Amino acid sequence: MAWIELPIAPELGREFPGILGPMTFRPETAKPINELVNVLLRGESTLSPGEREMIATHVSWRNDCYFCQTIHGAVAAAQLDHNEALVNKVKTDWLHADISPKLKALLNIAGKVQLGGRNVTADDVAAARAEGATDLEIHDTVLIAAVFCMCNRYVDGLNTWAPTDPNIYRSRAERIKEHGYVAVTQASIEQMNYTGARDETLQAK
Amino acid sequence: MAWIELPIAPELGREFPGILGPMTFRPETAKPINELVNVLLRGESTLSPGEREMIATHVSWRNDCYFCQTIHGAVAAAQLDHNEALVNKVKTDWLHADISPKLKALLNIAGKVQLGGRNVTADDVAAARAEGATDLEIHDTVLIAAVFCMCNRYVDGLNTWAPTDPNIYRSRAERIKEHGYVAVTQASIEQMNYTGARDETLQAK
Repeated sequence: MAWIELPIAPELGREFPGILGPMTFRPETAKPINELVNVLLRGESTLSPGEREMIATHVSWRNDCYFCQTIHGAVAAAQLDHNEALVNKVKTDWLHADISPKLKALLNIAGKVQLGGRNVTADDVAAARAEGATDLEIHDTVLIAAVFCMCNRYVDGLNTWAPTDPNIYRSRAERIKEHGYVAVTQASIEQMNYTGARDETLQAK
Repeated sequence: MAWIELPIAPELGREFPGILGPMTFRPETAKPINELVNVLLRGESTLSPGEREMIATHVSWRNDCYFCQTIHGAVAAAQLDHNEALVNKVKTDWLHADISPKLKALLNIAGKVQLGGRNVTADDVAAARAEGATDLEIHDTVLIAAVFCMCNRYVDGLNTWAPTDPNIYRSRAERIKEHGYVAVTQASIEQMNYTGARDETLQAK
């Protein structure tokens, strides 16, 4: 059970999994979060969607957030010909994974950001540039890492529930791959149109 | 100098300070970030704007982010009859500050979120409830703390510049108090309409 009373998903008979619980509780904040994630992970970029999802997955693993590392790992695999072994290697041991030197340099920066912004050094950035990383790629890597430091804390700071069946994540990942975060996640939040305990709280003030 | 080449502020002859640098570089991500901050810190809430700014300031101080703790400390003071001494006490030593027991219980939760979401315990939440905190207030405290863990990393992970003159922050804080984050920050980003190195990068792909 989450620390606060969250809406019940009709098809589950219990809380929505992971970030969907608090997002359904508070659609006003869910909307900009989904838009931000969609621009970063699915917007126009010289980094592929699979590369960006691997950065998100690695940071979520570093933050020990089960829900985020599992759903974004599943989306990464969906974007990479279902290569779950590669995604798992990048998540836990990117240094020895079969990925480009540029992505390794960006994952190094993302890991430093996870520890705290001041950990990123001029050498880290120079190493990424030496592998061909652009300013925009460095910017987006820092911001993706920062955004997942937010999402991971949001999901776990409220003690949300996460399913353990990997097929649930695989099936959701296919829909996210097909339609993106705003269309899949934001649409289902708006469909719920939750007006329960939260609004009573505001009205009681 | 920031790690990436950021737009130059015409009136300063150098980069925009703090988060405004990367926000001006990447307006597509600035927009949802400003909307998120505006809902949380300035939207309808049973927590006052001053209380919410103090949570943001304390988390930014914990993350050692000079720009964020200074600007949000200044906005908090602007919302609290310019009581800068109170804001400074809450930032660095909230346990002994002259604030409500409920705000202390929420600052305790925010500090746990800063360390990582899994640090928040059922006892932390029960203590906040015992002081009258609602589900929405607990939710927003967790998300404000999480959002500033993002913003702090964004600002410092790119090594942005921060002015040291406190009057610069005080004057900006008055405008934010008056008009909110979307009107002040988002408007100035859109006015810049930056189409420099970033777009060339995308076009070169």
